[in-house]
Amino acid sequence: MKWSGKINLSLATIAVLFGMAMVPAAKAQAKKPNIVYILTDNLGWGELGAYGGGVALGAPTPRIDKLASEGLRLTNFNVEAQCTPSRSALMTGRFAIRSGTYAVPLGGVPEGLTGWEITIAQSLSAAGYATAMYGKWHIGGVDGRLPNDKGFDEWYGIPRTTDEAMWFQSKGYDESIAKPPYILEGKKGEKSHEVTKYDLQQRRIMDTELTRRSIDFIERNAKSGKPFFLYLPLTQVHYPSLPAPDFVGKTGHGDYADSKAEMDHHVGEILDALDRLSLSQNTIVVFTSDNGPEPPTQLGGISPILNGGSAGPWRGAMFTALEGSLRAPFIIRWPGQVPAGKVSDEMVHCVDIFPTLARIAGAAVPQDRAIDGVDQTEFFLGKQEKSNRDGFPVYVGDILMAVKWRNWKVHFYLLDQATDPPLKLLIPRVYDLDIDPKEQRDVGYPNSWVVYPAVKIIGAFQESTKKYPLIPMGTPDPYVPPK
Amino acid sequence: MKWSGKINLSLATIAVLFGMAMVPAAKAQAKKPNIVYILTDNLGWGELGAYGGGVALGAPTPRIDKLASEGLRLTNFNVEAQCTPSRSALMTGRFAIRSGTYAVPLGGVPEGLTGWEITIAQSLSAAGYATAMYGKWHIGGVDGRLPNDKGFDEWYGIPRTTDEAMWFQSKGYDESIAKPPYILEGKKGEKSHEVTKYDLQQRRIMDTELTRRSIDFIERNAKSGKPFFLYLPLTQVHYPSLPAPDFVGKTGHGDYADSKAEMDHHVGEILDALDRLSLSQNTIVVFTSDNGPEPPTQLGGISPILNGGSAGPWRGAMFTALEGSLRAPFIIRWPGQVPAGKVSDEMVHCVDIFPTLARIAGAAVPQDRAIDGVDQTEFFLGKQEKSNRDGFPVYVGDILMAVKWRNWKVHFYLLDQATDPPLKLLIPRVYDLDIDPKEQRDVGYPNSWVVYPAVKIIGAFQESTKKYPLIPMGTPDPYVPPK
Repeated sequence: MKWSGKINLSLATIAVLFGMAMVPAAKAQAKKPNIVYILTDNLGWGELGAYGGGVALGAPTPRIDKLASEGLRLTNFNVEAQCTPSRSALMTGRFAIRSGTYAVPLGGVPEGLTGWEITIAQSLSAAGYATAMYGKWHIGGVDGRLPNDKGFDEWYGIPRTTDEAMWFQSKGYDESIAKPPYILEGKKGEKSHEVTKYDLQQRRIMDTELTRRSIDFIERNAKSGKPFFLYLPLTQVHYPSLPAPDFVGKTGHGDYADSKAEMDHHVGEILDALDRLSLSQNTIVVFTSDNGPEPPTQLGGISPILNGGSAGPWRGAMFTALEGSLRAPFIIRWPGQVPAGKVSDEMVHCVDIFPTLARIAGAAVPQDRAIDGVDQTEFFLGKQEKSNRDGFPVYVGDILMAVKWRNWKVHFYLLDQATDPPLKLLIPRVYDLDIDPKEQRDVGYPNSWVVYPAVKIIGAFQESTKKYPLIPMGTPDPYVPPK
Repeated sequence: MKWSGKINLSLATIAVLFGMAMVPAAKAQAKKPNIVYILTDNLGWGELGAYGGGVALGAPTPRIDKLASEGLRLTNFNVEAQCTPSRSALMTGRFAIRSGTYAVPLGGVPEGLTGWEITIAQSLSAAGYATAMYGKWHIGGVDGRLPNDKGFDEWYGIPRTTDEAMWFQSKGYDESIAKPPYILEGKKGEKSHEVTKYDLQQRRIMDTELTRRSIDFIERNAKSGKPFFLYLPLTQVHYPSLPAPDFVGKTGHGDYADSKAEMDHHVGEILDALDRLSLSQNTIVVFTSDNGPEPPTQLGGISPILNGGSAGPWRGAMFTALEGSLRAPFIIRWPGQVPAGKVSDEMVHCVDIFPTLARIAGAAVPQDRAIDGVDQTEFFLGKQEKSNRDGFPVYVGDILMAVKWRNWKVHFYLLDQATDPPLKLLIPRVYDLDIDPKEQRDVGYPNSWVVYPAVKIIGAFQESTKKYPLIPMGTPDPYVPPK
């Protein structure tokens, strides 16, 4: 032990002599990396400059683009089609259909993850991480299911979603009929408490406050030296996309564009804080979104309320099984560990995040349940070119709409936009995503063999539900799995 | 003179001592820059990695992406909607409606630019440039209208277009009915001659040969020291997108993706040649496309023949007045002169290229005719943030379909894809392109004031045609403008 200490010392001396940044590298070996996971709301694949949007779509995103140039940028990162399932899948490593969180909950039914579910925050917390969440939760609005019940030492934000802030403007809205949305705050081991009503004014300043609290959390942990997991689900750019007062008019292209500029600015503030505190080198930063952009209305126009964002070359918007719904931007930076400036079209799913970050952080993944995520560490670190995933079933709500496998997509239902009824197809449609991003050319003939692996994926999933039955939506606590 | 020579010498000495690349910078001041203008065929806005495509759409484009990172990348570079008009506008600085080249010519009618038109090649040639064109011309298929008649010292390529290579596979094709396509070769002052028939085998190897000849031209001029203008209209990725034999299977995603990879490779070969010959510093390199991607068929699927490429977030494909038709990728690199790594959404039109390059090269722009292009030198060089253009009329064929002005688009016709009939609208539709790339939300109410500047643009154009009448398509030589 002493001898090895000596070696480290002399390496450090050499580093100092040659002006090398040895300290962070040494730290990386010595200390678990911090994790900052920034999740935006309803930001389409095509919106960022790094994804072909940015200035072309009304709002430059220089800070996130630079983050992309310093890390790995995925073009085939997949999420679930809606806010609630996507966040559930991220937190649990399980497809949301397993935990009864497969859709945004309707008003007044028991919602969110049962007490039995284990989140990545619980896992990282058990592995010694300080954990915090600031932002939108949407996977449980009652005590026992809030972030401070699910592994976060502290949290501040909204238990449900941003459009509820519009209720206060709604004709005849009666707080005794539907409980108004509140901003909550809570600490582990304590009951969360209401801070203030989440109205349109609060909606505007929400992300500024989330960022402020995030930086405070980072600063506290920089002092304590404890590794930390910061989960920052920003409320932008979900409708109503109302920017903070100091961003109104920033782009000259209206509220939605200003909200995108605000989002980029907040990401920059987080990155600046990491730099200022000399934490960047030993911090994994992820920037991603929960699902595709908000859909156009039935009338063929963009709603003045919905963000009408861009999915780039991909067809469709959120709440569908189309690529525009499922593909989200995903950037991961970890200096010296994740290759810088790399772009990959390898398939990754948001359920993979739990096992991957757990592996990197030396944390545990539950063994007593079905975990759909696969460990992508080697892929993220550039030690292998291929990801460890080649397919997954696509549920929208509780309907198995499609299967994605390699470059292929097999659709069992027709659903062009969220406001249409899903129509079951007699003959599945097969698309080659590598050359048909608009999913408009059914190449089932001569590629009907592709249905075989799709059926295999479905079969494996169904087989797993025999051992681990699906938890129905609305299941009350305590949930006890059958023996 | 002697004194100034001394100063240069000592600066050069300092440069050598510190390993600085001083010589090219000195050359740039002393010598007119070379110009390499690479024009691809039917490559959509969204296809390159730098524009959000690349590996996500089946073919990485590392060389062109790197070029973008070294230069200025435009997200609002506009072209005409078809091959012939776009090339005509580029060559003359005039909207194609003026010169009777507003559409791809039908078989057997007099086609192309009249002898009266003056091209950028004629202008640069008169200013002392060596000029060459290798590739697809498509603005004049008979003697007097070929590249060697229009300012190019030498040329090799096809006078018309690539799909004619399929004629030889067509049932009942009779060469006596429609003259088969030939590859031609010609020198200034001489008559062009036929090299070989342009069949599908030649189609495959065409761009390899164009690149080889381009590099030979560059090498010859590197020796002579004469400034040169290389116009390289590659035949990829026009249908049939058949890659060169050494690119078949390169991407694993079929012929079209392989053709994109081949295109990127050829661009890389040109850039490597410039590096090897120490010409990169004093050479302006442009990479762009003539129009949007090829359209889907009427049946809603992608034709197995058409490339079905991506326009990124923009709606529509070529031969329409939609953004997917009009916006082309555009990258310009000129080390030390054009800002590196800059992205701009400022509006530029391909007619602007003639006056801009003429200004930079110290060449003349004709004064005896309507020139639609505006000088964009200050914008390209980063001396002003804004471009010098804020609008233009959009003709598709001889129909005035729309006007683009600032962030607005006013449509007078409805045309979703090339194979539909254009339908005249009673009430113009108004779109805000900054926030509605899919042109799906008519915001004429409350923005009907936008029709005013649109009408003004049309009025100014029509006024100019009184002095300089439009030249009808099919006008034979010699054309003499009315006094």
